[in-house]
Amino acid sequence: MKELQQKVKDEGVVIAGSVLKVDAFLNHQIDAQLMKKVADHFYEHFKNKGVTKILTIEASGIAPSIMAALAFNVPCLFAKKAVPSTLTEEVYTTDIHSYTKNKTSHVVISQKFLSAEDKVLIIDDFLANGEAALGLYDLVKQAGADCIGIGIVIEKSFQPGADRLKSEGLDVLSLCRIASLEGDKVTLIGEEE
Amino acid sequence: MKELQQKVKDEGVVIAGSVLKVDAFLNHQIDAQLMKKVADHFYEHFKNKGVTKILTIEASGIAPSIMAALAFNVPCLFAKKAVPSTLTEEVYTTDIHSYTKNKTSHVVISQKFLSAEDKVLIIDDFLANGEAALGLYDLVKQAGADCIGIGIVIEKSFQPGADRLKSEGLDVLSLCRIASLEGDKVTLIGEEE
Repeated sequence: MKELQQKVKDEGVVIAGSVLKVDAFLNHQIDAQLMKKVADHFYEHFKNKGVTKILTIEASGIAPSIMAALAFNVPCLFAKKAVPSTLTEEVYTTDIHSYTKNKTSHVVISQKFLSAEDKVLIIDDFLANGEAALGLYDLVKQAGADCIGIGIVIEKSFQPGADRLKSEGLDVLSLCRIASLEGDKVTLIGEEE
Repeated sequence: MKELQQKVKDEGVVIAGSVLKVDAFLNHQIDAQLMKKVADHFYEHFKNKGVTKILTIEASGIAPSIMAALAFNVPCLFAKKAVPSTLTEEVYTTDIHSYTKNKTSHVVISQKFLSAEDKVLIIDDFLANGEAALGLYDLVKQAGADCIGIGIVIEKSFQPGADRLKSEGLDVLSLCRIASLEGDKVTLIGEEE
């Protein structure tokens, strides 16, 4: 997705050689028009798969997911990183480790909102080691639902997440694929020397 | 907003006489079409105020806010409840207490994304005691920006939040106003005996 890729190059900031900060349009301030276009790309790719639900994880996954939910005309469900006091019924849970935050979250969704009849599109803002997407996939499997694919806004292709998901047989669509952040510079797939 | 009010009555669950659980369409599973209509109502009310930015707080404020950002064609900024490692520049901070969670969060936004030129519309999913909205208003004032109003999806009108905001001279638009949750039943403003 050209516009997104240009935005990542123009406004992304590389920290410590491996962390990409995109808080100008995705992780803190959010470009709503861009999120709508991101969602349209997900829709174009997955529209014939019978998607019944979008699944993501709070908080930065919500913006692209709610736009995708609008495009697919299905509900969006976001996994929570802490069990709220209002979540009193049965839950599916999994542990997701964030390398960036060096923290493992015990993630939950209510069993009410995911069933064996669902065809789930998982969406997230970033794919690096694949921990979040694999955790969400685990929740889908616990529900006996079908995961029809994974939509990712930004993939750090030099980390193993995409390969881990594909080795599970999952259809992964990443709209911006980063080959390297070496020299504190964003190099996209296809731009390598 | 009739459709929202009906949804709250049909799908909202009252817990312990004072907490309203709306995780079927707002706080866990999200109804994207409904969020778009919510945003359209905010737009209709505030469209002539020169809004330059939508401000909310993670996580449940993001869905209505990103839809509003799309309607107003401005960026959405969400305050974070923890300082991420990637947030390395100067921040505005405030403390927000959640009575439901019995927890005070040290909330931050990057100074980069809010300036004295901004006209800010604050949006949140719930208004009860007003802690979150007043905290966000505090961030707007720290930036020297102008707060043109507050858009709320569900207001618990029997709690003091709305009055606290209005006593600051703020224009508060709440799309569903709840008079009481007594008897574990949702009674809207206008429905009281």
